[in-house]
Amino acid sequence: MTDDFQGWERRDKPPTLFRRFAFAQYAQTRAFLDALSLLSEEMRRHPQNINFGTTYVNVTLGAADDATLSAEDELFARRIAALAERGE
Amino acid sequence: MTDDFQGWERRDKPPTLFRRFAFAQYAQTRAFLDALSLLSEEMRRHPQNINFGTTYVNVTLGAADDATLSAEDELFARRIAALAERGE
Repeated sequence: MTDDFQGWERRDKPPTLFRRFAFAQYAQTRAFLDALSLLSEEMRRHPQNINFGTTYVNVTLGAADDATLSAEDELFARRIAALAERGE
Repeated sequence: MTDDFQGWERRDKPPTLFRRFAFAQYAQTRAFLDALSLLSEEMRRHPQNINFGTTYVNVTLGAADDATLSAEDELFARRIAALAERGE
């Protein structure tokens, strides 16, 4: 596994993927948050933490089993990133 | 001004109000976040930061002028707290 995962920063103990998404205006931040909420419900997975202000969203994804990041965790990361790209 | 403000913790430099709202399930957290988003648009004010997981939401309110917390900032705090009470 590479150190980073497609723009996400890997952190350890416990293993998480962290990424900051920046947006020009609140309307885009809001659209991303709403899309992320729908994706969470669709995939039945929730980020460990979401931390946002008007023009940024920091997303932390934990390993579903709290031990190792799975292919499903990485798919979730990729799909979240795709939402942001759509919003730019 | 009292040290704390109706359940909100006052922090300084810059002055902010911080409060943690805990919920039994994600559905209540989601309802609170959606209501907070509507309130933000209604009052044209946004929390400085919102930090949440499935069963908690940490809200940080900054002073609109970054210097002193105004009556309007405190009203926003009270109205956010009222949303959470409704959700319990």
